[in-house]
Amino acid sequence: GALGGLWLGLWRRQEAAMAASEEDDDEEEELRRRFMAPPVSGLRELRRRRRELRSRMELLIMETQGEVCRALAALDPGAAFAVDTWERKEGGGGISCVLQDGEVFEKAGVNVSVVFGLLSEEAARQMRSRGKSLKAKDGKLPFCAMGVSSVIHPKNPHVPTMHFNYRYFEIEEADGTKQWWFGGGTDLTPTYLNEEDAVHFHKTLKEACDKHDLKLYPKYKKWCDDYFYIKHRGERRGIGGIFFDDVDSPSKEEVFQFVKSCAKAVVPCYIPIVKRHCHDSFTPEEKLWQQLRRGRYVEFNLVYDRGTKFGLLTPGSRIESILMSLPLTARWEYMHTPPQSSKEAEILEVLRNPKDWVH
Amino acid sequence: GALGGLWLGLWRRQEAAMAASEEDDDEEEELRRRFMAPPVSGLRELRRRRRELRSRMELLIMETQGEVCRALAALDPGAAFAVDTWERKEGGGGISCVLQDGEVFEKAGVNVSVVFGLLSEEAARQMRSRGKSLKAKDGKLPFCAMGVSSVIHPKNPHVPTMHFNYRYFEIEEADGTKQWWFGGGTDLTPTYLNEEDAVHFHKTLKEACDKHDLKLYPKYKKWCDDYFYIKHRGERRGIGGIFFDDVDSPSKEEVFQFVKSCAKAVVPCYIPIVKRHCHDSFTPEEKLWQQLRRGRYVEFNLVYDRGTKFGLLTPGSRIESILMSLPLTARWEYMHTPPQSSKEAEILEVLRNPKDWVH
Repeated sequence: GALGGLWLGLWRRQEAAMAASEEDDDEEEELRRRFMAPPVSGLRELRRRRRELRSRMELLIMETQGEVCRALAALDPGAAFAVDTWERKEGGGGISCVLQDGEVFEKAGVNVSVVFGLLSEEAARQMRSRGKSLKAKDGKLPFCAMGVSSVIHPKNPHVPTMHFNYRYFEIEEADGTKQWWFGGGTDLTPTYLNEEDAVHFHKTLKEACDKHDLKLYPKYKKWCDDYFYIKHRGERRGIGGIFFDDVDSPSKEEVFQFVKSCAKAVVPCYIPIVKRHCHDSFTPEEKLWQQLRRGRYVEFNLVYDRGTKFGLLTPGSRIESILMSLPLTARWEYMHTPPQSSKEAEILEVLRNPKDWVH
Repeated sequence: GALGGLWLGLWRRQEAAMAASEEDDDEEEELRRRFMAPPVSGLRELRRRRRELRSRMELLIMETQGEVCRALAALDPGAAFAVDTWERKEGGGGISCVLQDGEVFEKAGVNVSVVFGLLSEEAARQMRSRGKSLKAKDGKLPFCAMGVSSVIHPKNPHVPTMHFNYRYFEIEEADGTKQWWFGGGTDLTPTYLNEEDAVHFHKTLKEACDKHDLKLYPKYKKWCDDYFYIKHRGERRGIGGIFFDDVDSPSKEEVFQFVKSCAKAVVPCYIPIVKRHCHDSFTPEEKLWQQLRRGRYVEFNLVYDRGTKFGLLTPGSRIESILMSLPLTARWEYMHTPPQSSKEAEILEVLRNPKDWVH
């Protein structure tokens, strides 16, 4: 009786454990299908510490990479993403997925990186846009930084370039307190203005923001217009979207949920625009204007972008993944000025004076 | 007798003055022929203060601009230089000469600028590469900066890109003392290595330096290799030449004479190389490699070049003249690596490990 009951209990517990493990295996199998490569921290390790935000964020960025790559690849059936996994000798690594010279996409890159190690106080200060000072032990701060970032340059000048990036940082101070913050954004860079596309793009982002706080979209829309400013040209890089950095309130969980909504909005933001225009006809003059705008994209990324500059200056960073954001081709003409009231002048006007696309 | 003698004397003096003025007119006519546009400071003003170094330097940079433009135009008979003169509202102006999309040259720009006004202490500090501190009156320093700068991007991948720049600065401190210094250099960026060209280029520069001091060429050759370093790639921009900055000894006159020799060496350095290769045949693969190297040129100029960065950040600077240095077209491919022992790998080797071309 009692012994039988004990055995029964043990057996049931074992059976339950086996079932859980099968569930885990199924889940693992499912993740394998959805990810472009095994995650940097390893699936088992991520599962082991599944409640920690670091793990949940790593799963989110892996999932976002998979979702975006699959959605893009489906639109460019002749091309395929090349997947490179790389390690950083100072700690961590990444997965770079690049589709180059396809039918629809000139260059599409979706990059995940998960890096950790020790930062100097100076490097830590530079990492935080607000430049908060951090107290280090022996001048070094343990840190962890992870993110997904992507730039999509299509071939057709009627399909805009899109960029997004969602990232999470943790730094441990000398007394053991952990500072953490999120950053990110999604923004659009059209060669020609299409109001319907602009409204769809901004509306989709606004909906993602509004689920969390009605103040977020207007605030992050403006931040985006301010950040992607090519000062020497007096132009924004594109028609904006949302951008935020150094966000550490109201709570880790709430910011994570917001970032998750933004990451999930990338595909619905952009893919319908690509579908709508990837077969539009275009003239050689339109292609030329696209190439000149690509030149401006390069100017912003190399002269102003904090992420690019930080990446180029960080020892052990992977240059090819950072410069993946540059277009396949670009052009600079001396004193090129489009004629008044042309379609080229129309987009310039919006780049000089950002508009509100959603009321 | 005495009165007659007096009249004769007066008449002779007047005659001499008239002859001088005719000589001046001839000289003025001659300068007009040799310059691309009237100098910023005006010919009469330059003649009035002809003994001042500022005037002699302005004449030298104007003359260099004319010489180089004429030599280039002679090689590209179908194309012509567009000449723009521009004014800087804070003081001074410039002359930009650009030949775009010719038969031989993709983009050739030769720019003169002569600007003056007041600098903030911070801006003055940034101007001097050694970062000397300067004592200002009411926080402002009267300054004058002038120079000729040029980048030549040929179409044929067997003709290298060439850059040169010669400049002079004056800053007046609160106590009236004038600081002055010269900077400059000439360097070559080939798509493919041609040893004979490299030797000719360096030898011509060495000869110009050696006339003044045998120590100059080795010192400025090394400075050039160090300056044009694309850190994130571990490569130099090209095969070097000479580069110097902040030079204020042994004397103003001696440095000017050295700078003059360098400026006069530009045409004999480069033009024979263009002539030798501008009709070479090339493959589409060679053109593609050229475009990738153009991408690196853009990376250096936008990320590292002090002149470009300083220009982009200076209020009132002329962006089109600064960014004239960018090629007409450039290309970035993810993870492009040339095969071992290829001609592409050969030039990379030299960019990673600079060589001595002249012994």
